[in-house]
Amino acid sequence: MRIGVLGTGTVGQAIATRLRELGHEVTMGARDATNPKAAAWAAEHDGRAGTFADAVVGAEVVVNATAGTTSVEVFEAAGGNAALAGKVVLDVSNPIDWSTGELVLTVVNTDSVAERLQRALPDAQVVKSLNTVNGSVMVHPELVPGDHTMFVSGDHATAKDTVTRLLRDFGWPAGNIIDLGGITAARGQEMYIALWVSLMQAGGSAAFNIQVVRDGA
Amino acid sequence: MRIGVLGTGTVGQAIATRLRELGHEVTMGARDATNPKAAAWAAEHDGRAGTFADAVVGAEVVVNATAGTTSVEVFEAAGGNAALAGKVVLDVSNPIDWSTGELVLTVVNTDSVAERLQRALPDAQVVKSLNTVNGSVMVHPELVPGDHTMFVSGDHATAKDTVTRLLRDFGWPAGNIIDLGGITAARGQEMYIALWVSLMQAGGSAAFNIQVVRDGA
Repeated sequence: MRIGVLGTGTVGQAIATRLRELGHEVTMGARDATNPKAAAWAAEHDGRAGTFADAVVGAEVVVNATAGTTSVEVFEAAGGNAALAGKVVLDVSNPIDWSTGELVLTVVNTDSVAERLQRALPDAQVVKSLNTVNGSVMVHPELVPGDHTMFVSGDHATAKDTVTRLLRDFGWPAGNIIDLGGITAARGQEMYIALWVSLMQAGGSAAFNIQVVRDGA
Repeated sequence: MRIGVLGTGTVGQAIATRLRELGHEVTMGARDATNPKAAAWAAEHDGRAGTFADAVVGAEVVVNATAGTTSVEVFEAAGGNAALAGKVVLDVSNPIDWSTGELVLTVVNTDSVAERLQRALPDAQVVKSLNTVNGSVMVHPELVPGDHTMFVSGDHATAKDTVTRLLRDFGWPAGNIIDLGGITAARGQEMYIALWVSLMQAGGSAAFNIQVVRDGA
Protein backbone atom coordinates (compact mmCIF):
# COMPACT_ATOMS: atom_id res chain seq x y z
CA MET A 1 0.00 0.00 0.00
CA ARG A 2 0.90 3.66 -0.27
CA ILE A 3 0.85 5.10 3.22
CA GLY A 4 1.44 8.62 4.49
CA VAL A 5 2.78 9.10 7.99
CA LEU A 6 2.16 12.57 9.41
CA GLY A 7 4.65 13.36 12.15
CA THR A 8 8.41 13.00 12.49
CA GLY A 9 8.70 12.16 16.21
CA THR A 10 9.58 8.81 17.75
CA VAL A 11 6.10 7.40 17.05
CA GLY A 12 6.07 8.54 13.43
CA GLN A 13 9.59 7.20 12.90
CA ALA A 14 8.74 3.83 14.47
CA ILE A 15 5.60 3.35 12.39
CA ALA A 16 7.12 4.59 9.13
CA THR A 17 10.16 2.34 9.56
CA ARG A 18 8.04 -0.72 10.32
CA LEU A 19 5.80 -0.04 7.33
CA ARG A 20 8.86 0.15 5.08
CA GLU A 21 10.12 -3.18 6.51
CA LEU A 22 6.76 -4.65 5.54
CA GLY A 23 7.20 -3.41 1.98
CA HIS A 24 4.81 -0.47 1.89
CA GLU A 25 5.54 2.78 0.04
CA VAL A 26 5.81 5.39 2.77
CA THR A 27 5.96 9.18 2.68
CA MET A 28 6.74 10.91 5.96
CA GLY A 29 4.99 14.27 6.12
CA ALA A 30 6.09 17.32 8.08
CA ARG A 31 5.06 20.95 8.27
CA ASP A 32 8.07 21.96 6.17
CA ALA A 33 9.13 20.10 3.05
CA THR A 34 12.73 20.47 4.21
CA ASN A 35 12.21 18.97 7.68
CA PRO A 36 15.63 17.40 8.44
CA LYS A 37 14.24 14.47 10.49
CA ALA A 38 11.91 13.45 7.67
CA ALA A 39 14.69 13.78 5.10
CA ALA A 40 17.06 11.67 7.23
CA TRP A 41 14.41 9.02 7.73
CA ALA A 42 13.64 8.89 3.99
CA ALA A 43 17.32 8.56 3.10
CA GLU A 44 17.92 5.77 5.60
CA HIS A 45 14.78 3.74 4.87
CA ASP A 46 14.33 4.29 1.13
CA GLY A 47 11.15 6.25 1.78
CA ARG A 48 9.95 9.68 0.76
CA ALA A 49 9.68 12.92 2.71
CA GLY A 50 7.50 15.94 2.06
CA THR A 51 4.89 18.25 3.45
CA PHE A 52 1.79 16.98 5.22
CA ALA A 53 -0.05 17.49 1.92
CA ASP A 54 2.62 15.56 -0.01
CA ALA A 55 2.23 12.60 2.37
CA VAL A 56 -1.52 12.46 1.81
CA VAL A 57 -1.54 12.57 -2.00
CA GLY A 58 -2.02 9.09 -3.41
CA ALA A 59 -2.02 7.39 -0.01
CA GLU A 60 -4.62 4.78 0.84
CA VAL A 61 -3.89 5.04 4.56
CA VAL A 62 -2.73 8.15 6.43
CA VAL A 63 -1.30 7.66 9.91
CA ASN A 64 -1.75 10.51 12.38
CA ALA A 65 1.44 10.40 14.42
CA THR A 66 1.34 14.09 15.29
CA ALA A 67 0.66 15.47 18.76
CA GLY A 68 -3.05 15.08 19.50
CA THR A 69 -3.10 18.66 20.68
CA THR A 70 -2.59 19.92 17.10
CA SER A 71 -3.77 17.05 14.88
CA VAL A 72 -6.87 18.73 13.47
CA GLU A 73 -4.80 21.72 12.38
CA VAL A 74 -2.27 19.35 10.77
CA PHE A 75 -4.95 17.65 8.72
CA GLU A 76 -6.29 21.02 7.59
CA ALA A 77 -2.73 21.88 6.48
CA ALA A 78 -2.64 18.54 4.64
CA GLY A 79 -5.62 19.58 2.53
CA GLY A 80 -8.59 18.90 4.80
CA ASN A 81 -11.60 16.85 3.88
CA ALA A 82 -11.12 17.13 0.12
CA ALA A 83 -7.61 15.69 0.32
CA LEU A 84 -8.53 12.93 2.78
CA ALA A 85 -11.82 11.85 1.19
CA GLY A 86 -12.05 8.08 0.83
CA LYS A 87 -8.85 7.46 2.77
CA VAL A 88 -8.34 5.56 6.01
CA VAL A 89 -6.94 7.76 8.78
CA LEU A 90 -5.23 5.70 11.48
CA ASP A 91 -5.12 7.99 14.52
CA VAL A 92 -2.50 6.89 17.04
CA SER A 93 -2.28 10.25 18.84
CA ASN A 94 -2.87 11.36 22.42
CA PRO A 95 -3.89 14.93 23.34
CA ILE A 96 -1.20 15.34 25.97
CA ASP A 97 0.00 18.67 27.35
CA TRP A 98 2.81 18.62 29.94
CA SER A 99 3.37 22.40 29.93
CA THR A 100 1.99 22.86 33.46
CA GLY A 101 4.27 20.11 34.80
CA GLU A 102 1.44 17.63 35.17
CA LEU A 103 -0.42 15.58 32.61
CA VAL A 104 -3.34 17.45 31.04
CA LEU A 105 -5.48 16.05 28.23
CA THR A 106 -6.54 18.94 26.00
CA VAL A 107 -9.48 16.92 24.69
CA VAL A 108 -11.24 14.70 27.20
CA ASN A 109 -14.41 13.20 28.65
CA THR A 110 -17.11 13.98 26.06
CA ASP A 111 -14.86 14.31 23.02
CA SER A 112 -11.63 12.88 21.63
CA VAL A 113 -9.01 13.68 19.01
CA ALA A 114 -10.33 10.86 16.84
CA GLU A 115 -13.85 12.28 16.91
CA ARG A 116 -12.55 15.76 16.12
CA LEU A 117 -10.67 14.36 13.13
CA GLN A 118 -13.73 12.46 11.92
CA ARG A 119 -15.85 15.62 12.20
CA ALA A 120 -13.21 17.68 10.37
CA LEU A 121 -12.82 14.97 7.70
CA PRO A 122 -16.36 13.63 7.19
CA ASP A 123 -15.42 11.83 3.96
CA ALA A 124 -12.39 10.12 5.50
CA GLN A 125 -12.63 6.97 7.62
CA VAL A 126 -10.97 7.52 10.98
CA VAL A 127 -9.85 4.57 13.10
CA LYS A 128 -8.40 4.99 16.58
CA SER A 129 -5.75 2.46 17.55
CA LEU A 130 -2.21 1.97 18.90
CA ASN A 131 -2.30 5.07 21.17
CA THR A 132 -2.42 2.90 24.31
CA VAL A 133 1.19 1.70 24.00
CA ASN A 134 4.46 3.44 23.26
CA GLY A 135 5.94 3.68 19.78
CA SER A 136 8.17 0.62 20.10
CA VAL A 137 5.39 -1.65 21.37
CA MET A 138 3.00 -0.36 18.69
CA VAL A 139 5.04 -1.95 15.92
CA HIS A 140 6.77 -4.71 17.91
CA PRO A 141 4.18 -6.08 20.34
CA GLU A 142 6.54 -8.98 21.08
CA LEU A 143 8.53 -6.53 23.24
CA VAL A 144 5.88 -7.23 25.88
CA PRO A 145 5.71 -10.94 26.71
CA GLY A 146 2.62 -13.08 26.29
CA ASP A 147 -0.85 -11.93 25.36
CA HIS A 148 -1.87 -8.31 25.63
CA THR A 149 -4.58 -6.25 24.06
CA MET A 150 -4.87 -3.69 21.28
CA PHE A 151 -8.06 -1.69 20.74
CA VAL A 152 -9.62 -0.37 17.56
CA SER A 153 -12.62 1.92 17.23
CA GLY A 154 -14.24 3.72 14.34
CA ASP A 155 -17.48 4.19 12.46
CA HIS A 156 -16.35 2.43 9.28
CA ALA A 157 -16.03 -1.36 9.29
CA THR A 158 -13.89 -1.61 6.16
CA ALA A 159 -11.43 0.92 7.57
CA LYS A 160 -11.22 -1.07 10.80
CA ASP A 161 -10.51 -4.15 8.70
CA THR A 162 -7.67 -2.35 6.93
CA VAL A 163 -6.19 -1.20 10.24
CA THR A 164 -6.59 -4.65 11.76
CA ARG A 165 -4.60 -6.15 8.88
CA LEU A 166 -1.82 -3.64 9.52
CA LEU A 167 -1.89 -4.48 13.24
CA ARG A 168 -1.55 -8.16 12.41
CA ASP A 169 1.37 -7.39 10.09
CA PHE A 170 2.97 -5.50 12.99
CA GLY A 171 2.67 -8.71 15.05
CA TRP A 172 -0.59 -8.28 16.98
CA PRO A 173 -2.40 -11.64 17.09
CA ALA A 174 -5.99 -11.44 15.86
CA GLY A 175 -7.23 -12.74 19.20
CA ASN A 176 -5.64 -9.83 21.03
CA ILE A 177 -7.35 -7.12 18.97
CA ILE A 178 -10.62 -5.85 20.46
CA ASP A 179 -13.08 -3.83 18.37
CA LEU A 180 -14.65 -1.34 20.79
CA GLY A 181 -17.28 -0.15 18.30
CA GLY A 182 -17.83 3.37 17.02
CA ILE A 183 -15.43 6.29 17.13
CA THR A 184 -16.82 7.63 20.43
CA ALA A 185 -15.00 4.70 22.08
CA ALA A 186 -11.80 6.63 21.33
CA ARG A 187 -12.61 8.64 24.46
CA GLY A 188 -11.78 5.66 26.63
CA GLN A 189 -8.71 4.79 24.57
CA GLU A 190 -7.39 8.34 24.98
CA MET A 191 -8.36 8.78 28.65
CA TYR A 192 -6.57 5.54 29.48
CA ILE A 193 -3.31 7.39 28.88
CA ALA A 194 -3.56 8.87 32.38
CA LEU A 195 -3.39 5.37 33.85
CA TRP A 196 -0.63 4.49 31.37
CA VAL A 197 1.47 7.41 32.61
CA SER A 198 0.99 6.35 36.24
CA LEU A 199 1.97 2.77 35.36
CA MET A 200 5.03 3.98 33.46
CA GLN A 201 6.10 6.12 36.41
CA ALA A 202 5.42 3.33 38.92
CA GLY A 203 7.17 0.64 36.87
CA GLY A 204 10.03 2.66 35.45
CA SER A 205 9.61 1.42 31.89
CA ALA A 206 7.34 2.07 28.93
CA ALA A 207 7.61 -1.51 27.68
CA PHE A 208 4.27 -2.69 29.04
CA ASN A 209 0.65 -3.06 28.05
CA ILE A 210 -2.64 -4.28 29.46
CA GLN A 211 -4.45 -7.48 28.66
CA VAL A 212 -8.21 -7.63 28.93
CA VAL A 213 -9.11 -10.77 30.89
CA ARG A 214 -12.60 -12.20 30.85
CA ASP A 215 -14.30 -15.49 31.33
CA GLY A 216 -14.10 -17.55 28.17
CA ALA A 217 -17.88 -18.04 28.22
CA MET B 1 -11.85 -4.38 62.37
CA ARG B 2 -14.75 -1.99 62.68
CA ILE B 3 -15.59 -0.75 59.22
CA GLY B 4 -18.16 1.74 57.99
CA VAL B 5 -19.53 1.36 54.49
CA LEU B 6 -21.11 4.52 53.10
CA GLY B 7 -23.60 3.71 50.36
CA THR B 8 -26.40 1.17 50.00
CA GLY B 9 -26.14 0.37 46.27
CA THR B 10 -24.84 -2.81 44.70
CA VAL B 11 -21.21 -1.87 45.40
CA GLY B 12 -21.86 -0.99 49.03
CA GLN B 13 -23.88 -4.17 49.53
CA ALA B 14 -21.18 -6.34 47.91
CA ILE B 15 -18.37 -4.88 50.01
CA ALA B 16 -20.32 -4.83 53.27
CA THR B 17 -21.41 -8.43 52.81
CA ARG B 18 -17.89 -9.61 52.02
CA LEU B 19 -16.48 -7.77 55.03
CA ARG B 20 -19.05 -9.48 57.27
CA GLU B 21 -18.07 -12.87 55.79
CA LEU B 22 -14.50 -12.06 56.75
CA GLY B 23 -15.59 -11.38 60.33
CA HIS B 24 -15.43 -7.59 60.45
CA GLU B 25 -17.95 -5.44 62.34
CA VAL B 26 -19.74 -3.47 59.65
CA THR B 27 -22.11 -0.53 59.78
CA MET B 28 -23.79 0.43 56.51
CA GLY B 29 -24.39 4.17 56.39
CA ALA B 30 -27.12 5.96 54.47
CA ARG B 31 -28.47 9.49 54.31
CA ASP B 32 -31.48 8.47 56.41
CA ALA B 33 -31.21 6.31 59.51
CA THR B 34 -34.31 4.46 58.32
CA ASN B 35 -33.01 3.62 54.84
CA PRO B 36 -34.78 0.33 54.03
CA LYS B 37 -31.94 -1.15 51.97
CA ALA B 38 -29.45 -0.60 54.78
CA ALA B 39 -31.86 -2.05 57.34
CA ALA B 40 -32.52 -5.11 55.19
CA TRP B 41 -28.81 -5.65 54.67
CA ALA B 42 -28.11 -5.35 58.41
CA ALA B 43 -30.85 -7.82 59.28
CA GLU B 44 -29.67 -10.38 56.73
CA HIS B 45 -25.95 -10.14 57.46
CA ASP B 46 -25.90 -9.47 61.20
CA GLY B 47 -24.54 -5.99 60.61
CA ARG B 48 -25.61 -2.53 61.66
CA ALA B 49 -27.34 0.23 59.78
CA GLY B 50 -27.41 3.95 60.47
CA THR B 51 -26.69 7.37 59.12
CA PHE B 52 -23.47 8.24 57.35
CA ALA B 53 -22.29 9.69 60.66
CA ASP B 54 -23.27 6.53 62.55
CA ALA B 55 -21.19 4.43 60.15
CA VAL B 56 -18.11 6.54 60.72
CA VAL B 57 -18.15 6.60 64.52
CA GLY B 58 -15.67 4.08 65.91
CA ALA B 59 -14.65 2.77 62.48
CA GLU B 60 -10.99 2.24 61.62
CA VAL B 61 -11.75 2.06 57.91
CA VAL B 62 -14.54 3.88 56.06
CA VAL B 63 -15.43 2.68 52.58
CA ASN B 64 -16.77 5.26 50.14
CA ALA B 65 -19.27 3.29 48.08
CA THR B 66 -21.39 6.31 47.26
CA ALA B 67 -21.69 7.87 43.81
CA GLY B 68 -18.49 9.77 43.11
CA THR B 69 -20.61 12.70 41.94
CA THR B 70 -21.76 13.36 45.54
CA SER B 71 -19.08 11.74 47.71
CA VAL B 72 -17.60 14.93 49.16
CA GLU B 73 -21.04 16.06 50.28
CA VAL B 74 -21.66 12.63 51.84
CA PHE B 75 -18.47 12.85 53.89
CA GLU B 76 -19.42 16.34 55.05
CA ALA B 77 -22.77 14.89 56.17
CA ALA B 78 -20.84 12.14 57.96
CA GLY B 79 -19.08 14.72 60.10
CA GLY B 80 -16.30 15.98 57.85
CA ASN B 81 -12.65 16.13 58.74
CA ALA B 82 -13.20 16.02 62.51
CA ALA B 83 -15.15 12.78 62.29
CA LEU B 84 -12.77 11.15 59.79
CA ALA B 85 -9.49 12.22 61.38
CA GLY B 86 -7.04 9.34 61.70
CA LYS B 87 -9.23 6.94 59.74
CA VAL B 88 -8.51 5.17 56.48
CA VAL B 89 -10.96 6.12 53.73
CA LEU B 90 -11.11 3.50 51.01
CA ASP B 91 -12.56 5.29 48.00
CA VAL B 92 -14.02 2.88 45.45
CA SER B 93 -16.21 5.45 43.69
CA ASN B 94 -16.40 6.73 40.13
CA PRO B 95 -17.74 10.21 39.25
CA ILE B 96 -20.15 8.96 36.62
CA ASP B 97 -23.10 10.92 35.27
CA TRP B 98 -25.33 9.24 32.67
CA SER B 99 -28.04 11.93 32.73
CA THR B 100 -27.24 13.15 29.22
CA GLY B 101 -27.43 9.62 27.82
CA GLU B 102 -23.69 9.34 27.45
CA LEU B 103 -20.94 8.77 29.99
CA VAL B 104 -19.72 12.00 31.59
CA LEU B 105 -17.16 12.13 34.39
CA THR B 106 -18.03 15.05 36.66
CA VAL B 107 -14.46 15.17 37.96
CA VAL B 108 -11.72 14.47 35.43
CA ASN B 109 -8.30 15.19 33.96
CA THR B 110 -6.60 17.43 36.57
CA ASP B 111 -8.59 16.29 39.61
CA SER B 112 -10.31 13.19 40.98
CA VAL B 113 -12.87 12.23 43.57
CA ALA B 114 -10.13 10.74 45.74
CA GLU B 115 -8.15 13.99 45.71
CA ARG B 116 -11.28 15.98 46.52
CA LEU B 117 -11.93 13.69 49.48
CA GLN B 118 -8.34 13.99 50.68
CA ARG B 119 -8.54 17.79 50.44
CA ALA B 120 -11.89 17.84 52.28
CA LEU B 121 -10.57 15.41 54.92
CA PRO B 122 -6.93 16.44 55.43
CA ASP B 123 -6.60 14.39 58.63
CA ALA B 124 -8.00 11.23 57.06
CA GLN B 125 -5.93 8.88 54.91
CA VAL B 126 -7.60 8.36 51.55
CA VAL B 127 -6.73 5.36 49.39
CA LYS B 128 -8.15 4.87 45.91
CA SER B 129 -8.76 1.27 44.91
CA LEU B 130 -11.30 -1.21 43.52
CA ASN B 131 -13.09 1.35 41.30
CA THR B 132 -11.70 -0.28 38.14
CA VAL B 133 -13.88 -3.41 38.42
CA ASN B 134 -17.55 -3.97 39.15
CA GLY B 135 -18.86 -4.73 42.63
CA SER B 136 -18.82 -8.50 42.26
CA VAL B 137 -15.25 -8.65 40.98
CA MET B 138 -14.08 -6.22 43.69
CA VAL B 139 -14.75 -8.74 46.42
CA HIS B 140 -14.50 -11.97 44.40
CA PRO B 141 -11.61 -11.47 41.96
CA GLU B 142 -11.75 -15.20 41.17
CA LEU B 143 -14.83 -14.40 39.05
CA VAL B 144 -12.30 -13.33 36.41
CA PRO B 145 -9.95 -16.21 35.51
CA GLY B 146 -6.19 -16.05 35.91
CA ASP B 147 -4.10 -13.09 36.89
CA HIS B 148 -5.45 -9.56 36.66
CA THR B 149 -4.49 -6.32 38.27
CA MET B 150 -5.80 -4.13 41.10
CA PHE B 151 -4.43 -0.63 41.66
CA VAL B 152 -3.96 1.34 44.88
CA SER B 153 -2.93 4.95 45.26
CA GLY B 154 -2.72 7.34 48.17
CA ASP B 155 -0.40 9.64 50.06
CA HIS B 156 -0.23 7.49 53.22
CA ALA B 157 1.79 4.27 53.16
CA THR B 158 0.22 2.74 56.27
CA ALA B 159 -3.26 3.32 54.89
CA LYS B 160 -2.26 1.64 51.62
CA ASP B 161 -0.96 -1.28 53.68
CA THR B 162 -4.30 -1.55 55.47
CA VAL B 163 -6.19 -1.49 52.18
CA THR B 164 -3.80 -3.99 50.60
CA ARG B 165 -4.49 -6.42 53.47
CA LEU B 166 -8.23 -6.06 52.85
CA LEU B 167 -7.69 -6.64 49.12
CA ARG B 168 -5.74 -9.80 49.88
CA ASP B 169 -8.54 -10.97 52.18
CA PHE B 170 -10.97 -10.39 49.32
CA GLY B 171 -8.82 -12.73 47.23
CA TRP B 172 -6.47 -10.42 45.31
CA PRO B 173 -3.01 -12.04 45.16
CA ALA B 174 -0.25 -9.73 46.41
CA GLY B 175 1.52 -9.99 43.07
CA ASN B 176 -1.50 -8.59 41.26
CA ILE B 177 -1.74 -5.42 43.38
CA ILE B 178 0.11 -2.42 41.91
CA ASP B 179 0.89 0.64 44.03
CA LEU B 180 0.63 3.60 41.65
CA GLY B 181 2.02 6.09 44.16
CA GLY B 182 0.36 9.23 45.50
CA ILE B 183 -3.31 10.13 45.42
CA THR B 184 -3.02 12.06 42.13
CA ALA B 185 -2.70 8.66 40.44
CA ALA B 186 -6.43 8.29 41.20
CA ARG B 187 -6.99 10.42 38.10
CA GLY B 188 -5.88 7.56 35.89
CA GLN B 189 -7.82 5.00 37.93
CA GLU B 190 -11.00 7.05 37.56
CA MET B 191 -10.49 8.04 33.90
CA TYR B 192 -9.99 4.37 33.03
CA ILE B 193 -13.70 3.90 33.64
CA ALA B 194 -14.40 5.28 30.15
CA LEU B 195 -12.46 2.38 28.64
CA TRP B 196 -14.13 -0.01 31.10
CA VAL B 197 -17.57 1.10 29.88
CA SER B 198 -16.55 0.57 26.23
CA LEU B 199 -15.20 -2.88 27.07
CA MET B 200 -18.36 -3.76 28.98
CA GLN B 201 -20.51 -2.66 26.05
CA ALA B 202 -18.32 -4.46 23.49
CA GLY B 203 -18.10 -7.68 25.52
CA GLY B 204 -21.59 -7.80 26.93
CA SER B 205 -20.49 -8.58 30.48
CA ALA B 206 -19.04 -6.72 33.47
CA ALA B 207 -17.11 -9.79 34.68
CA PHE B 208 -13.74 -8.71 33.31
CA ASN B 209 -10.62 -6.85 34.30
CA ILE B 210 -7.26 -5.83 32.89
CA GLN B 211 -3.89 -7.31 33.67
CA VAL B 212 -0.79 -5.19 33.40
CA VAL B 213 1.81 -7.13 31.41
CA ARG B 214 5.46 -6.18 31.45
CA ASP B 215 8.79 -7.79 30.90
CA GLY B 216 9.92 -9.59 34.02
CA ALA B 217 13.23 -7.75 33.92
